Amino acid sequence: MADNSGRNHVIGVDLGGTKILAGVFDPKLELLGTTKLSTKAVRGPGAVIERVARCVRDAIDECDLSLKQVRAVGIGAPGAVDPEHGEVVFAPNLEWKDVPLVKELEKLLDLPVFLENDCKACMLGVYEKELKSKPRHVVGIFIGTGIGGGLVINGELYGGTSHSAGELGHMVIDVNGPKCSCGNKGCFEVLASRQALFRAIAAAIKNGEKSVLTDMLGEDLKDLRSGDLRKAIRRGDKLVQKIVEEAAEYTGIAIANLVNILNPEIVLLGGGVIEALADEMMPAITKSAKSHVLTGTYRNVDIMASKLGDNAGITGAAVLARAKTA
Amino acid sequence: MADNSGRNHVIGVDLGGTKILAGVFDPKLELLGTTKLSTKAVRGPGAVIERVARCVRDAIDECDLSLKQVRAVGIGAPGAVDPEHGEVVFAPNLEWKDVPLVKELEKLLDLPVFLENDCKACMLGVYEKELKSKPRHVVGIFIGTGIGGGLVINGELYGGTSHSAGELGHMVIDVNGPKCSCGNKGCFEVLASRQALFRAIAAAIKNGEKSVLTDMLGEDLKDLRSGDLRKAIRRGDKLVQKIVEEAAEYTGIAIANLVNILNPEIVLLGGGVIEALADEMMPAITKSAKSHVLTGTYRNVDIMASKLGDNAGITGAAVLARAKTA
Repeated sequence: MADNSGRNHVIGVDLGGTKILAGVFDPKLELLGTTKLSTKAVRGPGAVIERVARCVRDAIDECDLSLKQVRAVGIGAPGAVDPEHGEVVFAPNLEWKDVPLVKELEKLLDLPVFLENDCKACMLGVYEKELKSKPRHVVGIFIGTGIGGGLVINGELYGGTSHSAGELGHMVIDVNGPKCSCGNKGCFEVLASRQALFRAIAAAIKNGEKSVLTDMLGEDLKDLRSGDLRKAIRRGDKLVQKIVEEAAEYTGIAIANLVNILNPEIVLLGGGVIEALADEMMPAITKSAKSHVLTGTYRNVDIMASKLGDNAGITGAAVLARAKTA
Repeated sequence: MADNSGRNHVIGVDLGGTKILAGVFDPKLELLGTTKLSTKAVRGPGAVIERVARCVRDAIDECDLSLKQVRAVGIGAPGAVDPEHGEVVFAPNLEWKDVPLVKELEKLLDLPVFLENDCKACMLGVYEKELKSKPRHVVGIFIGTGIGGGLVINGELYGGTSHSAGELGHMVIDVNGPKCSCGNKGCFEVLASRQALFRAIAAAIKNGEKSVLTDMLGEDLKDLRSGDLRKAIRRGDKLVQKIVEEAAEYTGIAIANLVNILNPEIVLLGGGVIEALADEMMPAITKSAKSHVLTGTYRNVDIMASKLGDNAGITGAAVLARAKTA
């Protein structure tokens, strides 16, 4: 149909526990504009899916486009997803179980919708947009509130047998370490995520250690964000520096494990913590990884921080939508 | 040439730090016979390679065949290998560095020779012979003196960027644990290999704990083997049982990490320790893996012990030789 020839744009959506981000991409995968809404997960799946649809419509309108110019929508959702059946199988931070997200969203938007796990979507976005789909094997590590991952193997996103591959955050690296929400002790996530950093800082301050963060935010560290840690380090805060360096050390150990196992060409770090603290953390992360990897296996591996930041997820979701309707 | 039509057999060689094992396989990959020689690594690479050639010739003769009936030789060697250039890059337990094994062996045997890392060869053997090449994704863990691994991804042996993938033994799982020969603390290998078991038993006995092993072998535990641990447990030895169960617990944690990362269909355990102690260890390994894996990712994964035992390496080397000359 002549009408369909104008359907060149794709939408990428990043559905998170606190916010929904939708981005409109042109045929060259350039980002034209975004819209953000809070998720309001407490209202339940139906209401959240309606908010996703509204966020998509608003983003299209922001870019002076209409739904008729859109070919498809890609969406990255947290937790265990089943891309084939378009379902969110289990997403603790949304309190979702077996939600037919794709079917419901297609009804509301009258457009084809494609689903992926959020970290796998980030990996896809970084791989195509930032790495130009060149490296054969990539390990993507995304450090935010939690820690997730995405793997590219032989030039393709790797899902494993039941699409759950890439759960790097729950790799145990300190078997006697602090308890993680997953039930294990000493997972990578409980040692190096934003939650881990914040918990360690709060505990130290409660223990009487000094930090400029209390001057900046008050004793209760209300509204503490990753960017505040960067500001504190730049103001010479030794406590925050020490805790961030410990997290970088653990991140390096996790990377060494993954390099020993998968021998990738690139280890790509992303997520909110890395976006805020790349300058502070990357040298320590790389040093720790080098010192823990097996002799000889470090050759040929680049450890780098993504520059896509918060847009990695929507970019990857758009890549997915484009690939599925090519 | 008519003469070549009879070249239907392949030889698989497993080159280890202490012994060389060569096996003759018929066109259906049935094992016709084996020959074993000690490695005598102290005599240097040239002498060892001559012993490999002799071992191959002896195996052929044992089976009442001649070199003219052999199509090719596959060989699994320890450490870092470069299959493309036929070189053993670095093998600490042979004290080899940059040894052109394939070129030298081809000169001595006048047959095409193909090289692979020993654990990857084991994986290949188990995958083709035991798993009938059916599962898409397999993690192979081989527990002997050390711990190595082999990965099958999308139905193919996975080497990674520089053929060093699968070094599962040096995955850190206890960051404050005992020191490993690789320089790290708390690697899987230093917690659950044969060396780890023997070291823990020796330390406990030195500390005054009782074990039937001293009745069996004397106070110095001379010539202790994995099979002795099985005998001790069957005689009710609580110390050996406890130490073996601890190693099984660590093995389960390592498996959970690998399942979280790679979501394989099968986790396959092999090597001397598993061969000797499968009945004693497998239930505890499976229980530990289940309890440490992320909720939802355990579905569809089978944890099983290989039945090929010591023949996994020669079988895989033969698979390689056959595939390369098909």
